[in-house]
Amino acid sequence: MYCYKTKSYNNKIQGVKMTHQVKFTKMHGTGNDYIYVNTMLYPLANPEELAVKWSAPHTGIGSDGLVLIGPSDIADFSMHIYNADGSEAMMCGNASRCIGKYVYEKGLTKKKTITLETLSGIKELQLTVKRKKVTLVTVDMGAPTIGEIALELEAGGKQYIGTVISMGNPHLVIFVENIAKVNLSEIGPLLEHHPLFPHRTNIEFAQVITEEEIRMKVWERGSGITQACGTGACATAVAAIVNGKSGRLTNIIMDGGILSIRWDNESNHVYMTGEAIKVFNGTISL
Amino acid sequence: MYCYKTKSYNNKIQGVKMTHQVKFTKMHGTGNDYIYVNTMLYPLANPEELAVKWSAPHTGIGSDGLVLIGPSDIADFSMHIYNADGSEAMMCGNASRCIGKYVYEKGLTKKKTITLETLSGIKELQLTVKRKKVTLVTVDMGAPTIGEIALELEAGGKQYIGTVISMGNPHLVIFVENIAKVNLSEIGPLLEHHPLFPHRTNIEFAQVITEEEIRMKVWERGSGITQACGTGACATAVAAIVNGKSGRLTNIIMDGGILSIRWDNESNHVYMTGEAIKVFNGTISL
Repeated sequence: MYCYKTKSYNNKIQGVKMTHQVKFTKMHGTGNDYIYVNTMLYPLANPEELAVKWSAPHTGIGSDGLVLIGPSDIADFSMHIYNADGSEAMMCGNASRCIGKYVYEKGLTKKKTITLETLSGIKELQLTVKRKKVTLVTVDMGAPTIGEIALELEAGGKQYIGTVISMGNPHLVIFVENIAKVNLSEIGPLLEHHPLFPHRTNIEFAQVITEEEIRMKVWERGSGITQACGTGACATAVAAIVNGKSGRLTNIIMDGGILSIRWDNESNHVYMTGEAIKVFNGTISL
Repeated sequence: MYCYKTKSYNNKIQGVKMTHQVKFTKMHGTGNDYIYVNTMLYPLANPEELAVKWSAPHTGIGSDGLVLIGPSDIADFSMHIYNADGSEAMMCGNASRCIGKYVYEKGLTKKKTITLETLSGIKELQLTVKRKKVTLVTVDMGAPTIGEIALELEAGGKQYIGTVISMGNPHLVIFVENIAKVNLSEIGPLLEHHPLFPHRTNIEFAQVITEEEIRMKVWERGSGITQACGTGACATAVAAIVNGKSGRLTNIIMDGGILSIRWDNESNHVYMTGEAIKVFNGTISL
């Protein structure tokens, strides 16, 4: 999982004395919470283990995972994300927004356009700053891949029509008249494991409120119902546009918060804007 | 819920400038985790609200609740416990052990016998200290009230024999030959709401391993299956003694950890000994 970064990361920590006290910051974006550590000050030799230990509720800090902010030769900073099970994630839009707030408010940069090296390439962040505080962060989520626009499928004895969108990960977006009538915990697993998706899929049920506002509930592949999903919000906005249900700029309203999604005409890239919230600073012993 | 402490607590904070940054410590005892704040340094005007906000996973610190450590006119310190739903708890053995570690290691006292004012009276703590670190804390849990020793009851089509013990809160302890065969999530709610217990009850299923060791699983009234329960461990040890299954000193092994319970012959009090673990220190904005 650690791929091409292992060598340079380990080289960097060889010259630094390992500390026993690590400062961290807990932050969240639409309820997606991670532990953020600046590895330029606090290098961590075993992030996979620490992600498991620290993410545990009750006995640990409690989080969705651990994010390491480090130096980069090809961007302003690097980001490594470890899930609560210790596996490394390629990229997370919500986490990258939080990094934007972190590096600016901690004084690590004065830039308001920041590049981030991730396992899925270099991502660009745009900060909205008011009174020295980062109020919103926009992240370039790249170009979507549009699959079948009106895929018909059957699950649990019912017929569905969904739009297949990839934002690096697979999504099936299903528009409904009344989202309150969707029993997501029942239909979610059936659609995730539907034979049409041999690699499984994320599912979004979406109800169009206006041309600029969509209510969405998400079933994440491997996680089930979550409060919010950044790539799911992007996929929903793109699906709404290709189905003629909304304009190029849409607010996606999820249980965990609202993300503003813009699919740019010229670049074909999807831009996701939302809050990044600092919850607290902490110090923990290794 | 706030009872007789409200007045003196509010009087004390009137003279102190309210701060915007609060230092806290996350600690746990057998997996029971609370946020600990020294209100002599960081007075909090709205602990009920903060307990709800801060206990939330993802968007808060994440915990079982908030514990305030304050001054006392009648003991060394006072303790106020707020559950994650904002309600105030009378007393918590696991939390009081953590307070013992907190006040000693933070230098608030040099005593190894500490008295604590709680909503259910003054509790005494005994610290075991090695190399300036508190390794174990013993808390005097008071005298048990022994109800029916062999209560026969029926639930879910099965017959059970339980021992009714109060440790301030009600417990039904059921000894079984093989605890692995107990389907606690199924039988727990049936016993909790059994018509014999109009105020509901906590349930402990216990398997005697030796005269000094009991494996126990708990169903907590209002919470369901939890990792460990201090009063439940005490009730289990007392039930084992009155049923002639163990001696006066027993280790109770739960999913969240081990508590050593001693029921003293002379005082009739139950003493609970276990670890108190500091997870991390933090700073949060009000």
